[in-house]
Amino acid sequence: METQFSSRIKNLRRSVVRDILSFHSSNDMISFAGGLPGKEALPVEAMRKAADRVFEREGIRALQYGTTEGYNPLREWIADYLCSEGIPTGPDNILITGGSQQALDLIGRLFLNPGDQVAVTLPTYNGAIQSFELSEASLICTESDNDGPLPNEIRRAILQGAKFIYLTPTVANPSGRSISEKRRSEISEIIRTSGIPLIEDDPYSLLMFSDHSFRKMTSYMDGETILLGSFSKIVAPALRIGYIRAPENIISRMVPVKQAMDLHTSLVSQIILFEYLSHENLSKHISDAKASYRIKRDLILSELSAKLPQLKTDIPDGGVFLWGRWGSPINSSELLYLATEEGVAFVPGSSFYPDGGDNFIRINYSAPDLNRIPEGVDRLVKAYNRYHSLL
Amino acid sequence: METQFSSRIKNLRRSVVRDILSFHSSNDMISFAGGLPGKEALPVEAMRKAADRVFEREGIRALQYGTTEGYNPLREWIADYLCSEGIPTGPDNILITGGSQQALDLIGRLFLNPGDQVAVTLPTYNGAIQSFELSEASLICTESDNDGPLPNEIRRAILQGAKFIYLTPTVANPSGRSISEKRRSEISEIIRTSGIPLIEDDPYSLLMFSDHSFRKMTSYMDGETILLGSFSKIVAPALRIGYIRAPENIISRMVPVKQAMDLHTSLVSQIILFEYLSHENLSKHISDAKASYRIKRDLILSELSAKLPQLKTDIPDGGVFLWGRWGSPINSSELLYLATEEGVAFVPGSSFYPDGGDNFIRINYSAPDLNRIPEGVDRLVKAYNRYHSLL
Repeated sequence: METQFSSRIKNLRRSVVRDILSFHSSNDMISFAGGLPGKEALPVEAMRKAADRVFEREGIRALQYGTTEGYNPLREWIADYLCSEGIPTGPDNILITGGSQQALDLIGRLFLNPGDQVAVTLPTYNGAIQSFELSEASLICTESDNDGPLPNEIRRAILQGAKFIYLTPTVANPSGRSISEKRRSEISEIIRTSGIPLIEDDPYSLLMFSDHSFRKMTSYMDGETILLGSFSKIVAPALRIGYIRAPENIISRMVPVKQAMDLHTSLVSQIILFEYLSHENLSKHISDAKASYRIKRDLILSELSAKLPQLKTDIPDGGVFLWGRWGSPINSSELLYLATEEGVAFVPGSSFYPDGGDNFIRINYSAPDLNRIPEGVDRLVKAYNRYHSLL
Repeated sequence: METQFSSRIKNLRRSVVRDILSFHSSNDMISFAGGLPGKEALPVEAMRKAADRVFEREGIRALQYGTTEGYNPLREWIADYLCSEGIPTGPDNILITGGSQQALDLIGRLFLNPGDQVAVTLPTYNGAIQSFELSEASLICTESDNDGPLPNEIRRAILQGAKFIYLTPTVANPSGRSISEKRRSEISEIIRTSGIPLIEDDPYSLLMFSDHSFRKMTSYMDGETILLGSFSKIVAPALRIGYIRAPENIISRMVPVKQAMDLHTSLVSQIILFEYLSHENLSKHISDAKASYRIKRDLILSELSAKLPQLKTDIPDGGVFLWGRWGSPINSSELLYLATEEGVAFVPGSSFYPDGGDNFIRINYSAPDLNRIPEGVDRLVKAYNRYHSLL
């Protein structure tokens, strides 16, 4: 075959995270790279029981084709959850997707022509960058302060013709930061007035450590947004279940796109997840996971502060990532090669920027076992020292 | 939100099949519309045991993120199966997808720019038409005779600049026809010489009723094609597991596209499927399903021939569909509305053509219970008579 590829894949980057994942699943690597839940947070026994009940009770319905919109009881469960968050939602506002990643892809297919622009803050979720690249969109990067994206920057992006605005307002990946309530209110008003869609990506809001919780921007905007949620971080990534919450007229335009993309999301995954959600105490499960992640976060922060003070980090109030900035210029991609030789992995900051960002690194603390974290930091220190000795 | 949609969705059709599916799952409808396996062919108890063993043995590995390429033991199983079909294949030639539909979408993303052309035969799988529409491609429709697409028509499509050729050589959906060995050999040679990719879509070859089997075109072309397979028709659609078999250099270009699309296919689905394949006798399962489908096919053929001789059909040697042509001009889309009022559904032929095709209908015989088939045909006859009385 002489293959002529489409223009859209020419600039498509591979995910460093996923390549590292496939690389080190088979050896002694201590990984701070992926966004994986910790072993202790994966509900194996509950899921086993859920699967057993599903096949016993649902029988052939669990194995047959489903509807494109998704398994209705699961859509209803999600709608009830969002109502409890102050966002009036019915099942017809929900489309089940193959994780949030597919939701992003679907949004790109629905809205973006090649050359269109999308407004983001930096650093931004690497999977979103990949997805917008696949849609051949370019990014308008808006400046932020400690409260979140600056109102004037949002205005600028709208004036520049952004097709939509993509934000992760609560415990963003990778920065761990959240937009303040005041700023949510301000920029909601700007976006609402402009009429362009806001994509509110919200995979981490249930993983906040403190008692504080934020109002979703979708709530500020009376539901006139496209809200993305996911069960990957709070139940299990292997299910690949995410969802889109949007006005019905948007969902009904998304359905034929989703049909053409994959007919529907794994019904086996959806029904097992619904069965799990119906029988288990999700709040308790999440609360246990957060307790463990918080201990891991505190340990890695104290280890880094003691052994690698050259790396400056915030203290994230939730989620699964630290965002680190080197005190002096370092090429984190080159450091990564040395790190993997030492048996430790992280994600270079460049994955979260369209250009640059290599003076940052993202460190995941949820996946490694607690007792391996000190050794992981030791290895990172070795790599750092080797990096400087090679300069 | 004032929403400006992308140009690609302007002409995207909804799947009549899926809309009908979502419509009549809740009433007395007898459906000849979908491509659903019969209840008797869905291995509920075996799948239940497989799920239980998976969570017991794999534990957290069954709930964690997987690799984009797919679950390796499943890739190896598929590679072994293809080797047994005379196609040398290793796991690195396999990418697991969310059903064949996602494979088609991924191929569109990889190869097609807006305005590109794809060569097909008519009628062609409606999901493929949808997928190519989403990629904003146009179709080059090649003429066929009883042996399959005419060699000169394949040459013409190549000269006209087709980006690739899409064929379902064995028991095609909806026609039920297969390309003869002689024709496979002839057109394989033409396509190989041209260098453009052949997409061989092969969801039905294991569902042939007679002892005859065809060599896959991929085998004629020494593996230099893109072969699509699916477990939806032979195990369970709800899993949403299909695969692409291609040369490694093509698979490695597909992986970052799949990453951006959904990270990976449901690992829960993949592992349960692999466990099922490892412990159950798939040949026996398929053989039982075929025995049942053959009885259903024979019954519906005799019912139609006795009660509705105006509908001409071939006798398909496998698969799950009859392709019917009305003896006199009928608008099958209008007939469908009357049919659903009578409590029976089918798919109008227009779903399988870019334009026209409304004098045909597709009838599924695998899904309805055997004892409901006569009543389904009676309802179709009533709709047909009402259609003519309204003219």
